[in-house]
Amino acid sequence: MIQPVTKERFALNTATVRAQWSLRDCIEGCVRHGIRGIAPWRDKLEDCGVKEAARMIADSGLVVTGLCRGGMFPAADEAGRRAALDDNRRAVDHAMEIGARCLVLVVGGLPPGSKDLRGARAQVRDGIGALLDHARPAGLPLAIEPLHPMYAADRACVNTMKHANELCDELGAGLGIAVDVYHVWWDPDLEAEIGRAGAQRLLGFHLCDWLVPTTDLLLDRGMMGDGVIDLPRIRGWMEAAGYAGFAEVEIFSAETWWKRPGDEVLRTCVERLPLV
Amino acid sequence: MIQPVTKERFALNTATVRAQWSLRDCIEGCVRHGIRGIAPWRDKLEDCGVKEAARMIADSGLVVTGLCRGGMFPAADEAGRRAALDDNRRAVDHAMEIGARCLVLVVGGLPPGSKDLRGARAQVRDGIGALLDHARPAGLPLAIEPLHPMYAADRACVNTMKHANELCDELGAGLGIAVDVYHVWWDPDLEAEIGRAGAQRLLGFHLCDWLVPTTDLLLDRGMMGDGVIDLPRIRGWMEAAGYAGFAEVEIFSAETWWKRPGDEVLRTCVERLPLV
Repeated sequence: MIQPVTKERFALNTATVRAQWSLRDCIEGCVRHGIRGIAPWRDKLEDCGVKEAARMIADSGLVVTGLCRGGMFPAADEAGRRAALDDNRRAVDHAMEIGARCLVLVVGGLPPGSKDLRGARAQVRDGIGALLDHARPAGLPLAIEPLHPMYAADRACVNTMKHANELCDELGAGLGIAVDVYHVWWDPDLEAEIGRAGAQRLLGFHLCDWLVPTTDLLLDRGMMGDGVIDLPRIRGWMEAAGYAGFAEVEIFSAETWWKRPGDEVLRTCVERLPLV
Repeated sequence: MIQPVTKERFALNTATVRAQWSLRDCIEGCVRHGIRGIAPWRDKLEDCGVKEAARMIADSGLVVTGLCRGGMFPAADEAGRRAALDDNRRAVDHAMEIGARCLVLVVGGLPPGSKDLRGARAQVRDGIGALLDHARPAGLPLAIEPLHPMYAADRACVNTMKHANELCDELGAGLGIAVDVYHVWWDPDLEAEIGRAGAQRLLGFHLCDWLVPTTDLLLDRGMMGDGVIDLPRIRGWMEAAGYAGFAEVEIFSAETWWKRPGDEVLRTCVERLPLV
């Protein structure tokens, strides 16, 4: 039997209250609501200052499930690729400073003006390979987050667990996968590819829900239970594959959850855990 | 060398001018612009009357590349599934009456209230199987159209060419696939799965483009050349697999192309053929 997700292994991704709260607010909110993990986005981290953030997080006792996000590797020219890699190395360093368990990679889409999806995918492979040279010695795992195919052009051209697994096969140690239900729930191969990934590669498990109808491609994700994703089934596949990490809520919701008080959002997330 | 698409094997899907034109307008527009094929949607067909439509199309000499659409198989109960099947049988009959080369299937998503994606997919398989018993003796091919994963919940739970090929493997003769670039362009397995389908199964090739940004999940498709899809590459894969049918333009565009005069839309489609 799968045990329910408890607050002890539940994490808040700061995107969930991006419009309302600073990183300090998020940390204090997690503590207040008994949530034991946090995954900051870099904008919040840099607003706060990385040193100060590291101190606050350490004081709070929260587990940092991941730093969001590195990636965005493809670029129109060599200078662009170098700049992206430099920025990714900084993200690795910042992830280390705050004790993050991984750096989540949203790998990037087509360079401006390009229709060469294969080329973009090759750039992603090469970019991750180069970043591993920096992350591996530091002992920081990189987590590819396959994004929904509707983001293939502009956010991430790795759109299936299968593709992420292939990159892990090719690039080796230090690379894993963050599974976000929003991006992968539709995939007929999901169970098989989660099993193929296994405990070693499964570095994160992100929660929200797919609303029907969905009114915006980016900012209309649902609270767990308000949509059509069979969350317990997917969590079961994760746990059958050996995943024992946190479940992390990450909801982009401009018209609903970003307009509610942060405490109401966190309380609702916790109330919905039995549905996960 | 791949020959360019010419007007002689170019077809208009009536959805492209859904807001402006009746079926009669579409037929006359195709003739006026030298477009040799047409794919009506059922609403336009029924507005016109099937007999009258059949007569007009025959008089025009247009090839009917397909009738859009059958499908929508999953339902909450047996009565719903029976009603869907009855409606699909009527669609087969209407497709025969107008001499369509195939009936395009948008297979349907989750029944209301359901999160059981596997169950919905099983209902789709069973529904197509039952419909084949009616379509096969009539000699009318059924064409599964895999839809983009963003429609998995509410429009079609067959979201990849691989899944469509598996259904064809399982259900046998009389079943094929309509490849719409909008739905499949992101798929890393696309070339392989088009090749696997082969000439026998490839029953249609639909064109439009993926806009960046895309502002609506359903009604913001782009004109060929205005987006990021590498159309010649995908057409090359189709032709390498033996596809020798029409290329059919199908653009849902509430804010752009549905607001222009129909003749401007058709002229633009024809002008863009060298980009396909």
